Amino acid sequence: MRVLGVDPGLTRCGLGVVEGSGGRTVRFVAVDVVRTPADLDIARRLLLLEQGIEAAIVEHRPDVVAVERVFSQHNVRTVMGTAQASGVVALLAARAGLPVAFHTPSEVKAAVTGTGRAEKAQVGTMVTRLLRLDAPPRPADAADALALAICHIWRAPVQQRLNRLQQAHARHTPARTAAAAAVDAARRPPKGTAR
Amino acid sequence: MRVLGVDPGLTRCGLGVVEGSGGRTVRFVAVDVVRTPADLDIARRLLLLEQGIEAAIVEHRPDVVAVERVFSQHNVRTVMGTAQASGVVALLAARAGLPVAFHTPSEVKAAVTGTGRAEKAQVGTMVTRLLRLDAPPRPADAADALALAICHIWRAPVQQRLNRLQQAHARHTPARTAAAAAVDAARRPPKGTAR
Repeated sequence: MRVLGVDPGLTRCGLGVVEGSGGRTVRFVAVDVVRTPADLDIARRLLLLEQGIEAAIVEHRPDVVAVERVFSQHNVRTVMGTAQASGVVALLAARAGLPVAFHTPSEVKAAVTGTGRAEKAQVGTMVTRLLRLDAPPRPADAADALALAICHIWRAPVQQRLNRLQQAHARHTPARTAAAAAVDAARRPPKGTAR
Repeated sequence: MRVLGVDPGLTRCGLGVVEGSGGRTVRFVAVDVVRTPADLDIARRLLLLEQGIEAAIVEHRPDVVAVERVFSQHNVRTVMGTAQASGVVALLAARAGLPVAFHTPSEVKAAVTGTGRAEKAQVGTMVTRLLRLDAPPRPADAADALALAICHIWRAPVQQRLNRLQQAHARHTPARTAAAAAVDAARRPPKGTAR
């Protein structure tokens, strides 16, 4: 499985491509950062972002795109830009026919460092170690994108099992409802007999 | 000026097209709502949204796209979806070479009702009156999109004046810096004379 991890952002958008083939071993493929000028209006920044991400999808042909899930507890202005960027990433993945998975920052940190409250530097160190790189990828957004891809590779089997369980449950629900209706029907007197 | 107003959203995205040609008169062109199923994943919902908005741009050929500015004081989950949708709207406008303007909900309410704290119904009533419609557009998202377009038509001249002022100020700043540098240079003794 080849994963394109995206740490969405307007000023810097980290892109990391990692391969995994079962087990804990992950292989570095590529890393990049798309930057857009802060003095450009948001629409044009999103257009530049689109070009950068589309180019990465075409060049690296990932099987899935993993995106950081944005939360709004931070600075409102920044978060809105990040959310808009993440929307564009999801759109581009869907347009390329690729599945999109969202992972929270703490899920990513927990996957690569063992704790959801790890510091940025710790994530960089672990990404360097896990991918056998010579030095931590810079800037931090690049390391975060690689960490996201690794997180997805490791979490994907768990998520798939979870999805299958949920689907089985969903399939089960209408049947149970039908059974409940049948029980109710059996309790009610047959039509016409109550007159 | 023909404006496409967009009230961004995943469940319902309001699209309203209004024309204005100076003065307070505004003319209704079209209104529509793009809906995406809640059980679809976010990426596919954004893809459906893209198709609906692109179709509206192609059909109505607006000069500008006005989008509601999203705030995060509401429900976090909803706001993230709305922000992602607004990112897609801005991207599509930029891709079509159209300028994008953002207006806050209270700017829109103030423009069409006179108060930034108007209720939904009041906005619907005023949109109906201003555009001489037979009945308030339904759902509310449709009325909001038309209100956004009207707001943009009325605010655009003010914003243009503001932008020109800001540009003039920006042009002025480097000149002042150069002047300050010249003053500093004049104060420093000429090169080589201090030896």
